[in-house]
Amino acid sequence: MLDLTASSADITRTICDIPSVSGDEGHLADLIEEAMRAYPHLDVLRDGDTIIARTTQGRAQRVVIAGHIDTVPINRNVPTRDVVIDGEDVIWGRGTVDMKAGVAVQLKLAAELVAPRVDITWIWYDHEEVDAELNALTRLARTRPELFAGDFAILGEPSGAEVEGGCNGHMRAIVRTRGVRSHSARSWVGENAIHKAAPILERLSVYEARQVPVEGLVYREGLNAVRIRGGIAGNVIPDVCEVEVNYRFAPNRSVAEAEAHVREVFEGYEVEVIDKAAGARPGLDDPLAQEFVAAVGATPRPKYGWTDVARFSALGVPAVNYGPGDPHLAHHDEESVPVAQIEDVERGLRAWLS
Amino acid sequence: MLDLTASSADITRTICDIPSVSGDEGHLADLIEEAMRAYPHLDVLRDGDTIIARTTQGRAQRVVIAGHIDTVPINRNVPTRDVVIDGEDVIWGRGTVDMKAGVAVQLKLAAELVAPRVDITWIWYDHEEVDAELNALTRLARTRPELFAGDFAILGEPSGAEVEGGCNGHMRAIVRTRGVRSHSARSWVGENAIHKAAPILERLSVYEARQVPVEGLVYREGLNAVRIRGGIAGNVIPDVCEVEVNYRFAPNRSVAEAEAHVREVFEGYEVEVIDKAAGARPGLDDPLAQEFVAAVGATPRPKYGWTDVARFSALGVPAVNYGPGDPHLAHHDEESVPVAQIEDVERGLRAWLS
Repeated sequence: MLDLTASSADITRTICDIPSVSGDEGHLADLIEEAMRAYPHLDVLRDGDTIIARTTQGRAQRVVIAGHIDTVPINRNVPTRDVVIDGEDVIWGRGTVDMKAGVAVQLKLAAELVAPRVDITWIWYDHEEVDAELNALTRLARTRPELFAGDFAILGEPSGAEVEGGCNGHMRAIVRTRGVRSHSARSWVGENAIHKAAPILERLSVYEARQVPVEGLVYREGLNAVRIRGGIAGNVIPDVCEVEVNYRFAPNRSVAEAEAHVREVFEGYEVEVIDKAAGARPGLDDPLAQEFVAAVGATPRPKYGWTDVARFSALGVPAVNYGPGDPHLAHHDEESVPVAQIEDVERGLRAWLS
Repeated sequence: MLDLTASSADITRTICDIPSVSGDEGHLADLIEEAMRAYPHLDVLRDGDTIIARTTQGRAQRVVIAGHIDTVPINRNVPTRDVVIDGEDVIWGRGTVDMKAGVAVQLKLAAELVAPRVDITWIWYDHEEVDAELNALTRLARTRPELFAGDFAILGEPSGAEVEGGCNGHMRAIVRTRGVRSHSARSWVGENAIHKAAPILERLSVYEARQVPVEGLVYREGLNAVRIRGGIAGNVIPDVCEVEVNYRFAPNRSVAEAEAHVREVFEGYEVEVIDKAAGARPGLDDPLAQEFVAAVGATPRPKYGWTDVARFSALGVPAVNYGPGDPHLAHHDEESVPVAQIEDVERGLRAWLS
């Protein structure tokens, strides 16, 4: 039985020590469901390994606050340890940053805020760290879109206890060259597809990514090769070379505009888009968002990575990331979160919601 | 029982229809051994699936004539078929070019030339089409180097019934760039190893391969990327990129000189040589070789690909390739050999050896 009267740091330790690598969230979901059903001010429902708990105070506004309960694979970094880094108390271990400290704060506040100033829909969901198709929010947006209804949404993704608004969009594409295969002893009979890729890498290496202001936040873009492959044997001139590029684009650029840009950069080459997702505007011009930022006393920053805030944004709900932990440490084997940031986020959310 | 009184074209058909993909040469080796043991003018010995048959006439000079009896895998191109291409009678099927037509001529002449003008060591060997370490000649050069003793050597590799002298050397090397891994959403934190490979591909694409005269033959070199790989995931800035290059160099350049050249071309990059083999000088300035070329009435040409002639060259025995079939069709599923070329090579060898 989860003890939600413990401190949010203690709850962080407890739930990090319950492994819940994507696909294996069942036990932690059971414990969360059991804990939430003990509170009469919450309507609790479960869908797969996702637990939803809602207040129904009849407030004029509703806020959705969500966190995923899965982690990337453990690498000898569970159970957690209490360590001191640069004089600061931190909790070290898998999930501390991404994102069980954020979930711990949410669980504690869900239990304690019996009469918040807005109605709240708490969502703790599974399968965030794997293919988007497995993500519980993908399923729920299709089967129960009403659960996402709200005037504002907060994702507890690590943001260093600051508010990170919106997110860049992203796209992956294959840029392909073709040649003619031949034996490498008679290379002049063939055409080398790898050699033909030289200008593709040259364009990437001189590419200057934009920094784009959107609603007061500056989004930094990026266009990068993430994979390259070509050739089939040590004695064959290759007939195809594929450069996989990853484009992160500011949220004022649509997916179609992003694709046109990628095609323009690689003009003269075969371009095949293999993955794409719109970004999310920061939504910080919304009055509720401005109240939230003021109440938590945080500095809004842009979020560069794609997060599930984009799903809310796509449904018309302004959404931000707000959680403890340095996002650069997410997925890192030395993942660790300062206790002070956990307490900051608890204080910030409590101040705004009370 | 192989009938070596049949025509060399018929012997070609017969031995092509006995599958002997590398590793599976035993049955064909049995038949060759049995056939050779019937001729009292030959000393026959067997080592693994390699058959050696020697004349011991006490001649002043000895010539080694060799051919491999294995083929690359069959792809619905056995049994052979007689077809007419451009008005010419050809035998179509796996092994016709590489190199059972050459072996057929050798088997017939071994049986018939009871008193040749030079002593002859005939070698029919296994495992040529696979890793050099498996090649029977690698083993025999180590365990029975005396078998290679001779004043001149002829390999029956396909050369279009012309004489192809010596061979280019070859080398494979990894040219490597290193960077710093990071999440692709914050690419400026990392360093992209694939982008850093742009100048490597640029140098390859502008590289002008030499054409080098060696003992009257012009060897055409080549420096090519044969494989490229980099990147570990669609959202990670890659920290390493490897370009595998294949360098074919004229036989007047040593392996050490070739390596120095590759390191010079890719100066500023990490270069790791992973495979190397010296070329072979054509050996056509040798009097015996000149007699041979004159007797068979062929035009000497350079051999671009590496062949086992280099093994003889390394042991100090001048060696050439001389066999029926277009080398461009070797390993091709439409492999086929003109009957006239089989007859030409039989006539040429017979004229010189009688």
